Amino acid sequence: MRLKSAVILANGSFPVHEIPLNILKTSECLVCCDGAINKLETAGIKAHAIVGDLDSLSNDLKRKYQDIIHHFSNQDTNDLTKAVNWCLMNKINDITIVGATGERDDHMIGNIFLLPSYTKKMKVKMLTDYGIFTPVMRSRNFDSYIGQQVSIFSPQAETIITTANLRYELTNQKLDMLWQGTLNESMGDSFRIDFEGPSLIVYQEY
Amino acid sequence: MRLKSAVILANGSFPVHEIPLNILKTSECLVCCDGAINKLETAGIKAHAIVGDLDSLSNDLKRKYQDIIHHFSNQDTNDLTKAVNWCLMNKINDITIVGATGERDDHMIGNIFLLPSYTKKMKVKMLTDYGIFTPVMRSRNFDSYIGQQVSIFSPQAETIITTANLRYELTNQKLDMLWQGTLNESMGDSFRIDFEGPSLIVYQEY
Repeated sequence: MRLKSAVILANGSFPVHEIPLNILKTSECLVCCDGAINKLETAGIKAHAIVGDLDSLSNDLKRKYQDIIHHFSNQDTNDLTKAVNWCLMNKINDITIVGATGERDDHMIGNIFLLPSYTKKMKVKMLTDYGIFTPVMRSRNFDSYIGQQVSIFSPQAETIITTANLRYELTNQKLDMLWQGTLNESMGDSFRIDFEGPSLIVYQEY
Repeated sequence: MRLKSAVILANGSFPVHEIPLNILKTSECLVCCDGAINKLETAGIKAHAIVGDLDSLSNDLKRKYQDIIHHFSNQDTNDLTKAVNWCLMNKINDITIVGATGERDDHMIGNIFLLPSYTKKMKVKMLTDYGIFTPVMRSRNFDSYIGQQVSIFSPQAETIITTANLRYELTNQKLDMLWQGTLNESMGDSFRIDFEGPSLIVYQEY
């Protein structure tokens, strides 16, 4: 599968950390959730597409950006999902999401735990000001460094997990509660997670 | 049960919103996770107890606060849980947690989804800069206002939920995914959630 990539700016806190900020500044295809366009303007960065229900957009901005605005009014999906769906429609299959955390706590949780539903159709990761969330559908290795803080989230609690090269190893274990896989640590320049069952979400601190 | 209350300051972002900030300033018993003591000093607020593994505390601070420091070295619990356990040991059974969100994303998720485990032994709520998380063990009414943004999290996905007076009502429904109960809205000055099964977490925006 040839990968066509984009960066999505969601409507949480605008990135401060240099890693997501650089990704935003250097993106060749930047898809902006409509509620985030003011922040993007303030930062002097250009969007290639603006996607959303346009509720939060002034008429001035609607006129200014009419050529790149894509209106989706579906109330069953949140703003981030609308942007992801626009990418899928445009055959973009490698997405980096920034600005999806901070501000409203329930939006943040929603955005993070939506990641596994996106990963069935595309490669996706989310970069915050503190680290990277990666939804994972199958066993794999992760690049890392000694002492990197790592958390494993098992949203459906049924997944049977075995880890290698983490400080607190799991061996054919389920994580019944979302907090149980947090605060682990990498023991080297890579670690591995093998599992059977529904997708996991892995968080690695920068 | 007579309630004896305390406020716990966790080691996330120091509160900015006036609601958690006022609670912090006016608390008669303020329990501070050890990593947050510098922020509390900067704000000129006094802690009544400092709880943690003391890893992050300088020797100067250890000396300064020796009379109110309580050392817990258990690696199986995070800082917030250590503070909650100290409260339980001191027969405190009504806890308001502030400063538990912001900063490291995995800490934030851990702290929020630990709430149901605390609520078996005490009354507990968490106030962020945006709203209130309340773990709920049984069906109840919630005070609200028209248009209040409400999210319902069902961490174990098995709970059968019926709501009353929300914009998008649930009727004997399970929430299979954590994001499915987000972005609801109150239709009046109260709403009700009836459920059977494991605890829920309800989020109400200020």
